[in-house]
Amino acid sequence: MNRPSRPEIGIGLIGSGFMGRSHALAYRSVAGLFDLPVVPRRVLLADMDSATAEKAARALDFKRSTDDWQALVDDPAIGLVDITAPNRLHAPIAFAAFNAGKPVYCEKPLAPDAGQAGAMADAADAAGVTTMVGFNYLKNPIMALAREIISGGEIGEPVSFRGIHAEDYMADPAAPHSWRTDAASGGGALADLGSHIVALARFLMGPIDSVQGRMRTVTQNRPIAAGAAETSPVTVDDHTIALASFASGAQGTLEASWLAAGRTMQLAFEITGTRGSIVFTQERMNELKLHVADQRRGRRGFTTITAGPDHEPYGAFCPAPGHQLGFNDMKTIEVRDLMTALGNGAAAWPDFREAWRIQCVIDAIAASSATGAWTSVGADGA
Amino acid sequence: MNRPSRPEIGIGLIGSGFMGRSHALAYRSVAGLFDLPVVPRRVLLADMDSATAEKAARALDFKRSTDDWQALVDDPAIGLVDITAPNRLHAPIAFAAFNAGKPVYCEKPLAPDAGQAGAMADAADAAGVTTMVGFNYLKNPIMALAREIISGGEIGEPVSFRGIHAEDYMADPAAPHSWRTDAASGGGALADLGSHIVALARFLMGPIDSVQGRMRTVTQNRPIAAGAAETSPVTVDDHTIALASFASGAQGTLEASWLAAGRTMQLAFEITGTRGSIVFTQERMNELKLHVADQRRGRRGFTTITAGPDHEPYGAFCPAPGHQLGFNDMKTIEVRDLMTALGNGAAAWPDFREAWRIQCVIDAIAASSATGAWTSVGADGA
Amino acid sequence: MNRPSRPEIGIGLIGSGFMGRSHALAYRSVAGLFDLPVVPRRVLLADMDSATAEKAARALDFKRSTDDWQALVDDPAIGLVDITAPNRLHAPIAFAAFNAGKPVYCEKPLAPDAGQAGAMADAADAAGVTTMVGFNYLKNPIMALAREIISGGEIGEPVSFRGIHAEDYMADPAAPHSWRTDAASGGGALADLGSHIVALARFLMGPIDSVQGRMRTVTQNRPIAAGAAETSPVTVDDHTIALASFASGAQGTLEASWLAAGRTMQLAFEITGTRGSIVFTQERMNELKLHVADQRRGRRGFTTITAGPDHEPYGAFCPAPGHQLGFNDMKTIEVRDLMTALGNGAAAWPDFREAWRIQCVIDAIAASSATGAWTSVGADGA
Amino acid sequence: MNRPSRPEIGIGLIGSGFMGRSHALAYRSVAGLFDLPVVPRRVLLADMDSATAEKAARALDFKRSTDDWQALVDDPAIGLVDITAPNRLHAPIAFAAFNAGKPVYCEKPLAPDAGQAGAMADAADAAGVTTMVGFNYLKNPIMALAREIISGGEIGEPVSFRGIHAEDYMADPAAPHSWRTDAASGGGALADLGSHIVALARFLMGPIDSVQGRMRTVTQNRPIAAGAAETSPVTVDDHTIALASFASGAQGTLEASWLAAGRTMQLAFEITGTRGSIVFTQERMNELKLHVADQRRGRRGFTTITAGPDHEPYGAFCPAPGHQLGFNDMKTIEVRDLMTALGNGAAAWPDFREAWRIQCVIDAIAASSATGAWTSVGADGA
Repeated sequence: MNRPSRPEIGIGLIGSGFMGRSHALAYRSVAGLFDLPVVPRRVLLADMDSATAEKAARALDFKRSTDDWQALVDDPAIGLVDITAPNRLHAPIAFAAFNAGKPVYCEKPLAPDAGQAGAMADAADAAGVTTMVGFNYLKNPIMALAREIISGGEIGEPVSFRGIHAEDYMADPAAPHSWRTDAASGGGALADLGSHIVALARFLMGPIDSVQGRMRTVTQNRPIAAGAAETSPVTVDDHTIALASFASGAQGTLEASWLAAGRTMQLAFEITGTRGSIVFTQERMNELKLHVADQRRGRRGFTTITAGPDHEPYGAFCPAPGHQLGFNDMKTIEVRDLMTALGNGAAAWPDFREAWRIQCVIDAIAASSATGAWTSVGADGA
Repeated sequence: MNRPSRPEIGIGLIGSGFMGRSHALAYRSVAGLFDLPVVPRRVLLADMDSATAEKAARALDFKRSTDDWQALVDDPAIGLVDITAPNRLHAPIAFAAFNAGKPVYCEKPLAPDAGQAGAMADAADAAGVTTMVGFNYLKNPIMALAREIISGGEIGEPVSFRGIHAEDYMADPAAPHSWRTDAASGGGALADLGSHIVALARFLMGPIDSVQGRMRTVTQNRPIAAGAAETSPVTVDDHTIALASFASGAQGTLEASWLAAGRTMQLAFEITGTRGSIVFTQERMNELKLHVADQRRGRRGFTTITAGPDHEPYGAFCPAPGHQLGFNDMKTIEVRDLMTALGNGAAAWPDFREAWRIQCVIDAIAASSATGAWTSVGADGA
Repeated sequence: MNRPSRPEIGIGLIGSGFMGRSHALAYRSVAGLFDLPVVPRRVLLADMDSATAEKAARALDFKRSTDDWQALVDDPAIGLVDITAPNRLHAPIAFAAFNAGKPVYCEKPLAPDAGQAGAMADAADAAGVTTMVGFNYLKNPIMALAREIISGGEIGEPVSFRGIHAEDYMADPAAPHSWRTDAASGGGALADLGSHIVALARFLMGPIDSVQGRMRTVTQNRPIAAGAAETSPVTVDDHTIALASFASGAQGTLEASWLAAGRTMQLAFEITGTRGSIVFTQERMNELKLHVADQRRGRRGFTTITAGPDHEPYGAFCPAPGHQLGFNDMKTIEVRDLMTALGNGAAAWPDFREAWRIQCVIDAIAASSATGAWTSVGADGA
Repeated sequence: MNRPSRPEIGIGLIGSGFMGRSHALAYRSVAGLFDLPVVPRRVLLADMDSATAEKAARALDFKRSTDDWQALVDDPAIGLVDITAPNRLHAPIAFAAFNAGKPVYCEKPLAPDAGQAGAMADAADAAGVTTMVGFNYLKNPIMALAREIISGGEIGEPVSFRGIHAEDYMADPAAPHSWRTDAASGGGALADLGSHIVALARFLMGPIDSVQGRMRTVTQNRPIAAGAAETSPVTVDDHTIALASFASGAQGTLEASWLAAGRTMQLAFEITGTRGSIVFTQERMNELKLHVADQRRGRRGFTTITAGPDHEPYGAFCPAPGHQLGFNDMKTIEVRDLMTALGNGAAAWPDFREAWRIQCVIDAIAASSATGAWTSVGADGA
């Protein structure tokens, strides 16, 4: 068969944990779903040692493996550096990739603080390469619908945002220390989960001007490893709450918890506008509740909209409405967006600059918790 | 038939609006449902003019009517002064009742500020009479269940509270000024609705130490009357958000809005503890969701408990579970509690003192909004 | 005060169990809520013995008591005979009342079979008195809304009905025999619960022409009394399913179960029409889900309508939407309707004739279960 | 890198519509998720003409294409014949594959009637090859959980099943004729949707002995093509209801509709057992509601279990609970099961024999609708 050649891009994946595997699945699926300008080719996988890397490469169908991320970055077959390594490696790898003039796809949190995130965003700008950060919940078609509803004025001018991301994976006091509890790695409930709700808040409501937060460490000591008797102090937050003032004049609350017993995916918001409201929880990720104020008397209420082909790009996954997307599908859409940007030489979204802006909000919440005062977010107002 | 005489108490009801009527219905219903130590007798209804009072007395089945609340307070047939009059009259009527040595049942908000509320509570103490304030949502049997679950340690130690009371009765910018928008009357979303979620927070989580709030007036001018072209500035809040720090160490968010398009009764909370969680919304007032951490693997989740005879005093209304109570039934339980207290010469709950404590939280939220700083609640720490 | 005299009607209540008490509560509440043409006066309560009757009269605030229902019927002070006595007494009491020319209010099931129900309806017609049967779920304002939606063509022509009434009060095999398990008393899940869903089906969909049912007794022996070791066979159904063909051409399923573990009030239906659908469960009695076909692309879904003042007579209970009615409120609306009919000399609804039609459906289901064949409902086609 | 060779099986896919594409996606994804004994290799795609086939092969990443399904069956590179062609081709292709000694993966409905389905199952047995039919909803991990709950006796002995599959893709009377409305192709709501709920009923409740159904064609004429003015009669059902008697003694209702306005994926059931209940709808495919009878007083209710790694094979998709699978993931699990069976030389499930049993139920419902009598399912009682 005479097959038209589509350009390919060699993927260099660093890390093979939850997110590394999730990226690999997305690379595998994406070309079957979308007509991409450039197709990902799983070339090289790096992990901390050769055995891990080799095993992962085999499992995730990468052609080669290495224990040397610098070698991966330098490899001429690699066109995209994909960072799912531990957070402390995000910056050095990204800088190396920019030095090599290569685009970067990085998991969140981009950096442990806004200073480093900003430096990374500056370096990306200087290198003139495409970047993307894995805030995958933004890629849910229902989220695009929410944004369309807001930007189209369907609920009037948004006046309030009530957001939370709560899960319970650290609810057990016996859950041990890990990178998650390492502040230098960007650990803590606010950084790990709060960044998702901040990302959503910005996506839907626009810039956040200032915040007033309160962080708390409920479990003050944790085992140094799973099952260990020895414990050491926890220096990151378990539960953080914040007030937020948006540039638009709207205001709202933000909350992050990894102690929320019984919650496994409560990434949720309620947005009220002057003429309607929308309500969402990722727990039912294919549904959006919409109320508009001009309904007929006696027939008013929230309408539960279910994702379908009317909500792009759901139709690429399934031609029938209501059949539902899952978690991995959002990551596949994220990779679709990245491949599209790479193919068109355009900016991807959310890029390092946006991740920096998100981190500025996180940092401001942390700072305000320390001082007890409202704190300006800084960033660039975008 | 030889009927045993049960003591009766003569009710003097002041006001016949939404709440006045609701009280009258509760007086009518309560004796049929509960075996009370003292039975309310609808004797005298006062309203602002004779015609209104007479008409209301007829509709609500009070024996007599008057346009003079002082006469009502002084009437020897009156054993309980029930205040559902405009907020600015709460204090003068209550003081008069205390002077007359009579117990008082008053709608919320008790007073426009904590200073006045405290003075009223002090006067009640000095008079040694029973008082009760109409925070009727506390009387839902599901709320007693929630408190029992918490106090029994079923969800461990509570660590977070996420509370809101949002409705939409002022969402329309054409909704005119009224006592609701009069700060001197205790108006505003925080006072009108926020007081309910503060009351619930205190009921379930204990004292609030300090708060940091933000109040906003979204609709800055409203018609001076329904349909009027002339407008005047709004001096109360439409939407208020706050962080709260509890004496227990827990923390949480509080929110009040009367602009929440599509919401008609979102008095809701989520409480997370170290070993479980509960979730409630008054929108489904007969249900409580409970998660406890020690569930069997693969069978974990939130259980939706439906109110039934196991949840006192549901059984007085209906012997069959799941058949559901309604809004008016909560007011009836409130009156049951008040009659029981009066009959037993005991304190009722929530009394003027509790209403003062709630108002202290409201005032602290307002003060913190003005200063931008965390503000101690003051009160008495109870 | 010069009070206008409203006509009163003396109530003679026979029976003081769950339903007797529910009626008494409704008599007590109704006049405070509605401006009635005739007001119920609780005069005389009859029960099986003097002590029970006297105690109940006191508790339910009836003036007098008796152990002789015939005396009650004959009492000149009694203007309405209210039958909540055991089912086997429905017919004799009703006939006596008709002989005395008095209107009758009777709990369902009216009679153990359609023959007797028809005779009772004929007698009512002959006597020319008002009758009403206590299918109280029809009185939910949400049900009137459902009917209005259908009759207004909002969902097009109804094509399917999927109805169930399931509870679990007999799920425990140790639940003993009672009138509920006595076929001669109109016992069984179909008669006790199925009659409610048949009543709803008729109310919303019109006449049922023919049915094909299947009845099953799952627990074949039950203790003869609570805690008794001795058991005897159960001769009524625990669980019945049926297909139904409506006169309109629509078709649907009907189900009744008192074994449905975890269900306490699953009186539920889904109606699909050619242009929309409605979905309801009494478990959330203040909500109706409505879908209409002509919604905007990308915004389609079911709207959850919450009961409010737009849905008559909700506003009589509460001026604020979403605040919710409860189980007892439906009985109060039923009594409102009865008083209105009595005051206006009009027919009440559902009357004995309607109860007969419902019973004809029940009987046809039972007959079809015995023969295995589709069975015509008979009745009068109305 | 030294990569261990895993056996591959060459896939010959016939058809490239909704299901063909869904299969192709599953082949692509499955090897990245599971450690399979044999790995699918997308070799040859057949469609009705060369151009369609070639375009589809390119889009779905098959190496070659053809317009000749017989050539595909005969191709030595093809180890699995995958039939997603129009229903009328299922039998000839399957027989050809069996002649060639090749396993077959076929979409449902397997055949337009049980006679042909049985002949196909017999031929598969005679050929001794593995078969599988695409009842993908059975592959939801939540369904395995439901079966485990039942088989482990957690809800006692099942006594009732209330099942439905309703969607609305033919609700519009202007929806034209297609294979869906062609009875000879196995069209109609019962065959297309009802087969899924029958499959679920059998999976969870065991064999169905006899049925009594009623089929109705609501829209009696449809355009002969999209937008055509000319119409022709519809000879298949739009809406079918049935009673079912299970071999276990349980009974229940089955319903299929493609006219259910507003429903896009209501594949739903409620199962009541003697000691508990489960409730499911594919509309929320990651949730199962479970009630067990021995809960603590005052804490009873349905628990909403959310799919997670405790529910195999969810964990292969995502290590975190509550993050949710989607529609395509079920098809991937189906292919996992097929590859596992092929690799182990074992029977897959549901195979042609099971599809025949499902078809026997469908046929019996149709026959009973015609005769009005209860009809034995026949089949083999398994």
